[in-house]
Amino acid sequence: MMPFASDYMEGAHEKILSKLQEMNHIPQIGYGADEICEAAKEKIRKACGCPEAEIFFTVGGTQTNTIVIDSMLQNYEGVISAATGHINCHESGAIEFTGHKVITVPGYEGKLRGEDIEKTLETFWSDGTFEHMVFPGMVYISFPTEYGTIYSEEELKEISAVCGKYNIPLFADGARLGYALASDRCDITLEKLAEYCDVFYIGGTKVGALFGEAVVFTKRNMPKHFLTHVKQHGGLLAKGWLLGLQFDVLFTDNLYMEIAEHAILMAKYMRAELEKRGCRIFLDSPTNQQFLILENRKLKELDGKVAYSVWEKFDDTHTVVRFATSWATRREDIDALLTYF
Amino acid sequence: MMPFASDYMEGAHEKILSKLQEMNHIPQIGYGADEICEAAKEKIRKACGCPEAEIFFTVGGTQTNTIVIDSMLQNYEGVISAATGHINCHESGAIEFTGHKVITVPGYEGKLRGEDIEKTLETFWSDGTFEHMVFPGMVYISFPTEYGTIYSEEELKEISAVCGKYNIPLFADGARLGYALASDRCDITLEKLAEYCDVFYIGGTKVGALFGEAVVFTKRNMPKHFLTHVKQHGGLLAKGWLLGLQFDVLFTDNLYMEIAEHAILMAKYMRAELEKRGCRIFLDSPTNQQFLILENRKLKELDGKVAYSVWEKFDDTHTVVRFATSWATRREDIDALLTYF
Amino acid sequence: MMPFASDYMEGAHEKILSKLQEMNHIPQIGYGADEICEAAKEKIRKACGCPEAEIFFTVGGTQTNTIVIDSMLQNYEGVISAATGHINCHESGAIEFTGHKVITVPGYEGKLRGEDIEKTLETFWSDGTFEHMVFPGMVYISFPTEYGTIYSEEELKEISAVCGKYNIPLFADGARLGYALASDRCDITLEKLAEYCDVFYIGGTKVGALFGEAVVFTKRNMPKHFLTHVKQHGGLLAKGWLLGLQFDVLFTDNLYMEIAEHAILMAKYMRAELEKRGCRIFLDSPTNQQFLILENRKLKELDGKVAYSVWEKFDDTHTVVRFATSWATRREDIDALLTYF
Amino acid sequence: MMPFASDYMEGAHEKILSKLQEMNHIPQIGYGADEICEAAKEKIRKACGCPEAEIFFTVGGTQTNTIVIDSMLQNYEGVISAATGHINCHESGAIEFTGHKVITVPGYEGKLRGEDIEKTLETFWSDGTFEHMVFPGMVYISFPTEYGTIYSEEELKEISAVCGKYNIPLFADGARLGYALASDRCDITLEKLAEYCDVFYIGGTKVGALFGEAVVFTKRNMPKHFLTHVKQHGGLLAKGWLLGLQFDVLFTDNLYMEIAEHAILMAKYMRAELEKRGCRIFLDSPTNQQFLILENRKLKELDGKVAYSVWEKFDDTHTVVRFATSWATRREDIDALLTYF
Repeated sequence: MMPFASDYMEGAHEKILSKLQEMNHIPQIGYGADEICEAAKEKIRKACGCPEAEIFFTVGGTQTNTIVIDSMLQNYEGVISAATGHINCHESGAIEFTGHKVITVPGYEGKLRGEDIEKTLETFWSDGTFEHMVFPGMVYISFPTEYGTIYSEEELKEISAVCGKYNIPLFADGARLGYALASDRCDITLEKLAEYCDVFYIGGTKVGALFGEAVVFTKRNMPKHFLTHVKQHGGLLAKGWLLGLQFDVLFTDNLYMEIAEHAILMAKYMRAELEKRGCRIFLDSPTNQQFLILENRKLKELDGKVAYSVWEKFDDTHTVVRFATSWATRREDIDALLTYF
Repeated sequence: MMPFASDYMEGAHEKILSKLQEMNHIPQIGYGADEICEAAKEKIRKACGCPEAEIFFTVGGTQTNTIVIDSMLQNYEGVISAATGHINCHESGAIEFTGHKVITVPGYEGKLRGEDIEKTLETFWSDGTFEHMVFPGMVYISFPTEYGTIYSEEELKEISAVCGKYNIPLFADGARLGYALASDRCDITLEKLAEYCDVFYIGGTKVGALFGEAVVFTKRNMPKHFLTHVKQHGGLLAKGWLLGLQFDVLFTDNLYMEIAEHAILMAKYMRAELEKRGCRIFLDSPTNQQFLILENRKLKELDGKVAYSVWEKFDDTHTVVRFATSWATRREDIDALLTYF
Repeated sequence: MMPFASDYMEGAHEKILSKLQEMNHIPQIGYGADEICEAAKEKIRKACGCPEAEIFFTVGGTQTNTIVIDSMLQNYEGVISAATGHINCHESGAIEFTGHKVITVPGYEGKLRGEDIEKTLETFWSDGTFEHMVFPGMVYISFPTEYGTIYSEEELKEISAVCGKYNIPLFADGARLGYALASDRCDITLEKLAEYCDVFYIGGTKVGALFGEAVVFTKRNMPKHFLTHVKQHGGLLAKGWLLGLQFDVLFTDNLYMEIAEHAILMAKYMRAELEKRGCRIFLDSPTNQQFLILENRKLKELDGKVAYSVWEKFDDTHTVVRFATSWATRREDIDALLTYF
Repeated sequence: MMPFASDYMEGAHEKILSKLQEMNHIPQIGYGADEICEAAKEKIRKACGCPEAEIFFTVGGTQTNTIVIDSMLQNYEGVISAATGHINCHESGAIEFTGHKVITVPGYEGKLRGEDIEKTLETFWSDGTFEHMVFPGMVYISFPTEYGTIYSEEELKEISAVCGKYNIPLFADGARLGYALASDRCDITLEKLAEYCDVFYIGGTKVGALFGEAVVFTKRNMPKHFLTHVKQHGGLLAKGWLLGLQFDVLFTDNLYMEIAEHAILMAKYMRAELEKRGCRIFLDSPTNQQFLILENRKLKELDGKVAYSVWEKFDDTHTVVRFATSWATRREDIDALLTYF
């Protein structure tokens, strides 16, 4: 099966496996209090240009979203998200499970606009019955979005300014962060992300690690006793050093960006070749997820040979599908894929 | 530092790392729907003598306890546990976080007795105001317990019978299951555990895996849409095949029991030698966790050289400490430890 | 202040106060296990033509919605509602507080359509990733809606059929139920409501009682140990007989319908007279809530003299406001109101 | 049936019903924002000698405990209580339902001791693994306790000092507060309670009101947006003025204390006469709840004639029962009771 269904179909970058082999029998203190974690955090702080950043390593995306949102919100607050946001669609209600409403605001190809957020906040605070409603207590964006799109610096700045004005944190879900930063159409850097966001996470699972995400609190705003929050949510890994180890490798010699750039290169190659062959593009994604409109009979031809993700019905004879590249995609995988087109 | 603080201080068994290296670039479907997971489950079913067992792989212990308990209980039910049970003491209230009370019953060296459970259940159901109370809806035991002790078949049978009489499930937390089963004083086998318990988990994190637990539902009683429960609790691993891979290795050629037996051998050696040197044993643990009463000044001597766990104050000049062996303990580690005694 | 802001601005019908005075010193068993409650339930069963209905009295609306929804849903399920539904807008996230998502479906003047619900359910069940989403487990409608509109029998039947097809319960929030049933444009009766809905509640707070709602489970489907659910949610009234007493009075000699009809009469009179005076009607409500488009400078004139509710901004110079009549509205109240128009 | 089962078997003091009759048709703003509530709050502030007290009226006890505790605790905190505390025993797990553990500390006839609380706090904070445990974030006491006992000023001061030292709030559940304050063995006053506690509530339901509790925050520490907390928990009464009205009456001309004193007088009379007749007292309660050890055959004799509460089994032939007096108890009720002894 050609692995284009997602960017989490393979294990980890070789350097991570090597390091794991190397550290396997060096005893470590539990729960992330070890020195490898500390070293990894220091590297991330540097990469973010944020020497005071507080960092915590978690295992997976939904878990991270849930813990960050629940620990930063007051009980009576909800989180603003695009209707297409991962937390609103594909996390089995994990946010609501912790008691918080996802307050949806219209999105455009997965992206929120500052003005829409501001309108929501203005409307809330000017409503005479606001105490009977859910308080908007945070803004959640995904970067890149679920549609592979990315915010420009201008757009992010605007959202950040609205959050600042209303004094609520801006949280960026970076499950695929590398693939945004590495896009040649992205004018955001890790440093800028750290500047505009109050908290974000750097996805490892989809960008070279076996698993793991690095949550970065940028304004000395990590919730008190965050480790206990994580534990209470069932997210604390006994061998926390496994997380530190992976991020240490990823943030050594720019590996994280390097492998993300490779994925983007592969995505561009794939898309260009598919377009040449007459494939219709559903929307213009500058990252590693590419959305195509394929004929249903073409999909039948691919079934069993190419792993892809069904996105949504386009019309009675066409379907939108996602082909994702990743840090692990080889040019020959794409060439093999192209033989079907 | 000599690694006796716990049994989760090192990585994974070499065979797991090899297999990981081998499978690293074979693309897999996400979320545990892959064939490696299926193969591992089949091996576990065989080891349990329970061909109809439903199995789900999770990442860590607290997460597993929380998901199993929350998904099997009605909203108005709580879970019976020894006061010393892990869910009652060391999980940051993760059970209460999901809305359920931990109903404590006196324990003896970490173990519950059937008669005490029965009394609790009888008292509850004969109380005229029981509808104003928390319904006891499950019994939680740890096997081995937090004190390293193990239930005899007779004891487990009795608890199982009480649960059967009141029609509530019996759940065994097997975070260290191997170390109980491998003890020469244990008359329980995986088959018997599957017979007496409605659900239990086979701990991987502490017994040779990098991480991972295998939840076994033995009576075709896995909660409907269990995957969604796991996802909602933030516990679903994207690369679920990493869990399957590890359990596949552990349940091939009896590896799980073999490495657990090694840990027991090491524990017996350590204890015998320490006793010879005049150390006082706090309680008689037949498993890999050994509890000693040490002089506080002896502890000062060890600090910085030996990693151990402080258990509790014994008296003004003595402390109870835990030394744990594991699948990774080498005889020379113990010999080195003994030089301090 | 002329009391048109809502239908809960005054106390209770005189007959309720008399009965309260009469029963005040007759000792009663606590928590609704008394004979007055039983008598009231029997009267409601008769009024609903549903001899097997299970009935529980609660104190207020948000509480009732929360308890009914949380106790009938599985943990991983959410409730379908119009975006304008009370549970989605004006209950401070009480549903999410209990862990459930409110799944919004477009509404039309507050009403859901069977076809939209069906589309939502179809889409969910045909999505390959549905296990990563929130399961739609119930349909919530308000009757009348937050906009004063009512479902026709045809519309309700269609929604009920969709729920039946997907085997999920239909729940009608009847906080203002009397004002729907008493409308001359309503072809639904209590009997029909009991037939089409799996559970609904008969609002007392807004229809003649001091407080109180009667939850009616129509299909022998009251959740097991419902009293405990209510207690756990903090909703169990010690002197439950106060609730029974009020519903007993309201369901004696047709009082509930009689006072609701009066409110409708008053609403029609008010609306007709306001229209005569040139007031613009925002939407055509056949019940006790009337929505008008008033000039902002007119509102300034009313402020301090007439209590009304601001609904939403209409345009820069106009606002939609609600004037509500109730069981307690007197013709002279309206005549006084009309002097301003 | 002679009404000794509890102190909530009858309606309300006549003055409350009169006032209700009087105010019944005066329109009021919803949700407690009315002037009656404000007047009642002012009277309570005066009675507490605490001009800055923030007060909120709620409907019932379990609801109040739940909202106060949940809104004042951090997510990772639990509440310290005696094992016999109402929140631990008879509230169907309402506290755990909101995510918080009840941390039990041994009690003596229902009372906690400062030194035990201090020990719990000390032990927690000196444990190296405290971040894996539930943080003790509040102390809950009931005043009077579930056994009718009361804290002396000395005892309360000590508990208050421990709370102050660890910077956690002290919360007194005053469901029966009047019956403690009115006891001739009580050296606590409302003023002193306000001094020593951070928050407490004045029970109305059991002391003359139809229903209702007045929560008093004494240190300008009412949680932000407390009304929203109450709404989210389903506890906000639409006609909040009904609560204000009742407390206004109870705190006019010292009525609250006057009727509580009457109950105490009746309790003393009942107990003295029962003792004269040879009844054994289970424990020495100075308040309105009296606990007797009765022969089981005596109970059979009473059944159907006297309403009492079964407390617990004493031995095979005896049972502990509770006889409660209240604001509504008449001397002739007791005389009638005495004919059975």
